[in-house]
Amino acid sequence: MQPVTLYGNIESGNCLKTLWAAKFAQAPHDWVEVDIFGGETRSDSFLALNPAGQVPVLRMADGRTLAQSNAILLYLLEGTDLIPADPFQRAVMLQWLFWEQYSHEPYIAMRRSALRFKGADEADLDPDLYAKGRRALGVMEMNLLSQSFMVGEDMTAADIALVAYTRVADEGGFDLSEFPAVNGWVRRVESALGIEHGQAAVHGDPE
Amino acid sequence: MQPVTLYGNIESGNCLKTLWAAKFAQAPHDWVEVDIFGGETRSDSFLALNPAGQVPVLRMADGRTLAQSNAILLYLLEGTDLIPADPFQRAVMLQWLFWEQYSHEPYIAMRRSALRFKGADEADLDPDLYAKGRRALGVMEMNLLSQSFMVGEDMTAADIALVAYTRVADEGGFDLSEFPAVNGWVRRVESALGIEHGQAAVHGDPE
Repeated sequence: MQPVTLYGNIESGNCLKTLWAAKFAQAPHDWVEVDIFGGETRSDSFLALNPAGQVPVLRMADGRTLAQSNAILLYLLEGTDLIPADPFQRAVMLQWLFWEQYSHEPYIAMRRSALRFKGADEADLDPDLYAKGRRALGVMEMNLLSQSFMVGEDMTAADIALVAYTRVADEGGFDLSEFPAVNGWVRRVESALGIEHGQAAVHGDPE
Repeated sequence: MQPVTLYGNIESGNCLKTLWAAKFAQAPHDWVEVDIFGGETRSDSFLALNPAGQVPVLRMADGRTLAQSNAILLYLLEGTDLIPADPFQRAVMLQWLFWEQYSHEPYIAMRRSALRFKGADEADLDPDLYAKGRRALGVMEMNLLSQSFMVGEDMTAADIALVAYTRVADEGGFDLSEFPAVNGWVRRVESALGIEHGQAAVHGDPE
């Protein structure tokens, strides 16, 4: 794989997914930190990279770009054993990746962002965000009661995507001790990725 | 591929994607119509199929199930020429599939659902839904000014996913004549799929 540049913010779970994937796949990569809170994603130079104005973005050495955290994740992990060879298992992995973006991130990451980064008061947040976030954690709990990872007994890209915001769900006011199977799974995935538990972000220089 | 059963509602773009994909791939399939407006997705028998309580669901002959429209779409289209062979092109296709669920469907399908099926008054809807839906159509317009389909000159699974709600965006109060490149693309994709323009749903018995 040609070297890639990842544009992201180290506090963002969506961005961290792509960094963890690059490290796991031992893909040569640079990390460019983007000041999302300072409005850098709305600058002309950033919009030239991604007209949607969102991080993360992957840029190839030849200038082609790719957006959407889970698409970048799958691209970087292609050829590793985090992508199941069996077509149905691969489809189940994709099911969880789409579910993460539609039914998990909009509640769990949104509450974390509001409470941790935007100084919101919990009482002012839409109660629906909490109810739907807990429901998402409940769906994961049910799935993880009978298997070690989201797709089965082996870790896949879906575990990387889902751990990104689940491991910091407490920062969004969710109590993971209510979901013991999820809690155990967070430790397993963190350990496989070499992430320190309870640390909100990866520190130190990315490769 | 073993025969599959698709559970869906014929008015739902997310469900129609999977039906179009099964027909395109000539995959043997049955269609089971689900009364989503009558609460059938919350019945015990449906929740046993998909604990998330959402259509569409694909069920294999051996009983295994798969949820999430775009995961089902990719599963059914595997091996057809709607899945690019080139890894980067495939990643761009996935980028648009994730973007569809995160930045298009929640605005465009949501307004259509509120106006067409839930009897909402347009003035009562969150103005943000309209602004973000128009922005999504603008992103597609920019992309389609220079190429025939979302990923390049060839149709991919991303076009099937995005056409599902874009072709009925007028039912959500969006004016597609503002987006001429999108409008032309809708006709191209409908024609390739054998869908009649201006018809909200596929009628007649699915195979």
